Amino acid sequence: MFESAEIGHAIDKKEFKREAPLLRQALLNAQYELLQQGKHAVVILVNGVDGAGKGETVNVLNEWMDPRHIRTEVFGPMTDEDRRHPELFRFWQVLPPKGHIGILFGSWYTDPISAQVLGQEKHEHFEHRLERIRQFERMLAAEGVVLLKLWFHLSKKAAKARFKLLESDPKTAWRVTRLEWDGLKQYDTLVRVSDEALRKTTLGEAPWHVIEGTDPNYRYLTAGRLLLNALQQSHLVPNAGQSQAHASAASQPKPEAMDGGTLLKAQDYSRHLGRKTYEARLEDLQGRLNALSRHPRMGKKSVVVVFEGADAAGKGSTIRRITQALDARFYRVIPIAAPNENERAQPYLWRFWRYMPRHGHAAIFDRSWYGRVLVERVEGFCAEQDWMRAYGEINDFEEQLHEAGVIVVKFWLAITPDEQLRRFNERQETPHKQYKITAEDWRNREKWPQYEAAVGDMIDQTSTQVAPWHVVASNDKLWSRVAVLEALCDQLEAAMA
Amino acid sequence: MFESAEIGHAIDKKEFKREAPLLRQALLNAQYELLQQGKHAVVILVNGVDGAGKGETVNVLNEWMDPRHIRTEVFGPMTDEDRRHPELFRFWQVLPPKGHIGILFGSWYTDPISAQVLGQEKHEHFEHRLERIRQFERMLAAEGVVLLKLWFHLSKKAAKARFKLLESDPKTAWRVTRLEWDGLKQYDTLVRVSDEALRKTTLGEAPWHVIEGTDPNYRYLTAGRLLLNALQQSHLVPNAGQSQAHASAASQPKPEAMDGGTLLKAQDYSRHLGRKTYEARLEDLQGRLNALSRHPRMGKKSVVVVFEGADAAGKGSTIRRITQALDARFYRVIPIAAPNENERAQPYLWRFWRYMPRHGHAAIFDRSWYGRVLVERVEGFCAEQDWMRAYGEINDFEEQLHEAGVIVVKFWLAITPDEQLRRFNERQETPHKQYKITAEDWRNREKWPQYEAAVGDMIDQTSTQVAPWHVVASNDKLWSRVAVLEALCDQLEAAMA
Repeated sequence: MFESAEIGHAIDKKEFKREAPLLRQALLNAQYELLQQGKHAVVILVNGVDGAGKGETVNVLNEWMDPRHIRTEVFGPMTDEDRRHPELFRFWQVLPPKGHIGILFGSWYTDPISAQVLGQEKHEHFEHRLERIRQFERMLAAEGVVLLKLWFHLSKKAAKARFKLLESDPKTAWRVTRLEWDGLKQYDTLVRVSDEALRKTTLGEAPWHVIEGTDPNYRYLTAGRLLLNALQQSHLVPNAGQSQAHASAASQPKPEAMDGGTLLKAQDYSRHLGRKTYEARLEDLQGRLNALSRHPRMGKKSVVVVFEGADAAGKGSTIRRITQALDARFYRVIPIAAPNENERAQPYLWRFWRYMPRHGHAAIFDRSWYGRVLVERVEGFCAEQDWMRAYGEINDFEEQLHEAGVIVVKFWLAITPDEQLRRFNERQETPHKQYKITAEDWRNREKWPQYEAAVGDMIDQTSTQVAPWHVVASNDKLWSRVAVLEALCDQLEAAMA
Repeated sequence: MFESAEIGHAIDKKEFKREAPLLRQALLNAQYELLQQGKHAVVILVNGVDGAGKGETVNVLNEWMDPRHIRTEVFGPMTDEDRRHPELFRFWQVLPPKGHIGILFGSWYTDPISAQVLGQEKHEHFEHRLERIRQFERMLAAEGVVLLKLWFHLSKKAAKARFKLLESDPKTAWRVTRLEWDGLKQYDTLVRVSDEALRKTTLGEAPWHVIEGTDPNYRYLTAGRLLLNALQQSHLVPNAGQSQAHASAASQPKPEAMDGGTLLKAQDYSRHLGRKTYEARLEDLQGRLNALSRHPRMGKKSVVVVFEGADAAGKGSTIRRITQALDARFYRVIPIAAPNENERAQPYLWRFWRYMPRHGHAAIFDRSWYGRVLVERVEGFCAEQDWMRAYGEINDFEEQLHEAGVIVVKFWLAITPDEQLRRFNERQETPHKQYKITAEDWRNREKWPQYEAAVGDMIDQTSTQVAPWHVVASNDKLWSRVAVLEALCDQLEAAMA
């Protein structure tokens, strides 16, 4: 992958002085166009061998453009604190919103490559992490993020020469320490591992650009021009959601079942519990849940509970029965409404990643990322190919959580249309409950069949062994609460074993 | 993934009798439309648990449509003979051309799932194979193949009941053997492994459809309607190549190097060899090559040699120096021209897969799959997003070969434009060489700079540790032939070690 970056590319001072101001002006214009259009975020990944001028190039790019709309973040190998979250967590935190540029100096490639070079990980694990990265980058591209992946390369000879040159000048000698010379010993391993990483992540949507790092002028102009191309390209490509990014002849939404049967209709809605039994069982289960939350293994685990269900299915009151059993420092309840402006400027999973609990903690979602394949699908807030690809993306997301020790427990509280009507009417007639019912609830109700189909597909496509859906018949609130608590305790217990 | 397929879907006889003829007519119409448009091939994957009626459903589909344009293929776990080729080889052989339908009864999922259920493979390997499948299916979808992935499911209880029912009737008792009952013992494992396989291969471009297999009428109508949807969808989606399948804001072709430097210009074209030295070295190297072709380890390896280069760069004469050293039963030379009609009806890699040698054999390609990123790019025969995604697809392809024991050796024979002109003129002036030079050669020559850029990108993106490019300065034919033979011997030797 590095052939063209060992031929001694160079640009003389005169040419640089002529080209640089032109490029700079063009970059500034393109940056403002990006900001004004507000359609795309640009993420620049800066990776490569030591001594190839990565830092200086980042400085020059910041100098050439308006730094107020650029955010530079530095990433090294993962720390112990990083390991208390899923691997990609720290990168989600710094994704630039649409219209902005993020420079990641070191990126999601740094830790996998470094762990492989140092022999800390089996090769299979390295491959698995690269595959995760492919999925992540494909998803970002489909969501309209422009990825510019830069790799700064130096031949071994050039690296040695550069270190010697830096050492010879008292003003720059500090840049070369024992660390740099030690690094050079692993040069061949690094190049072999990087070759594999680049090869396996060469995507049509996000190709690699290898830049020879020997000559600063060449380096700056090349990085700058690649960025300019990326910005200009982004102005031409439609927004995510309107794009045909994943339209394909092979993709067809599932039609309704031929016999009209659905998973929701197949539930037994007659199940119920008497108040006395309920209270006894509730107390038992809350005790069990509390003990589980203080389980010694919880230090390496975290918990994500998802509640979805039709309006008035009882999500709120069920969540309260859970939190009653928990220490307030342990959990956080996250109600999810329509995305706000900041959230719409990001890939749809972004606003959920923010709330992913670190080890030893829990997050309880009142509605969740499943809005993508429920309300956004039914209301047409996103294109068909966008919610079609979301099933796989959500499975990937939950698998990442699972692998990072997060226990994902998902509930669909199922009620019948009749029971919903009864509860709506009750809400309207009860003064202290009137605030709970709005015109939108009535509108949603009219789309019951579409929602029923969407729920069926959602469960079929995303109920997995690592993150199963629990469908709980909830016409009887008491029965439903006990069933939820029991399923929650069972799943936590199994995960702690 | 199987929730909705355990609720007892069923359709009564009367309804079936009403619906089936309508569906049948619609399927026939859609099949003819597919044939007439000739834009897409349809591949139906039929997988699932034993006893769920897969075979009967395939029969019914064949009965309902025109079987002359349907080809049904049955695949089980890999045999020893299958293992002498890369895993996906046998599936490439049976891909239907555009306009046609292929039913794969058992598919690329069968062997990975079965090996995992039987505990014959590490879990990492299973994951790796699933990832390979994802890449393969994405590529097929991008090439315009419609994938309909059907999974026929039965709950454990339903499976047991079905076997008992079949056994109780003398006419069907033969269908249930010890094998079926033994299989049932592994039901839970099978469902767990299948759940993972389906989850990890749920793609927006190629989702899974799980069909409950208990009731035949439901099964037939559901499979038929899913197929109808897929066919009708395919009529609406543009052809591969014109599709926006992989257009993305993140994808930008590489601009020319800022200093005008290229890998080809950086070669040392002054290298040459005297006739005497040449003859001595040629003899040595041919001997070495012959010995390597008879190496005991060659039984588990095969060899693919690729020659690319400008017109008149000497590909043909170099290949002759290689074949002189080899037993005719060992190798095959494959000259690649523009694709013919049959080949254009398939994904672009198809015509090369056909020639992949089994273990113990070699294929020497005079031009190759790199046409996609050379002539097809430069002449605009495919869209930018198609050649942009080809780099990654080709890397995946060559990695599959590598993992299956194929040694991939790639040569770019580099000449200067002046040298090409000299050779063109020589050809025109020499009567027995005149047939070698055409108007097209002169036209290609005018696009030298575009080809030079394409070659640079090709080598940067696809020269990898598993399949490196050897760029050989070939202004001097003698020097070039010796350099090629030496590189070939070195790479074979390293692979045999």
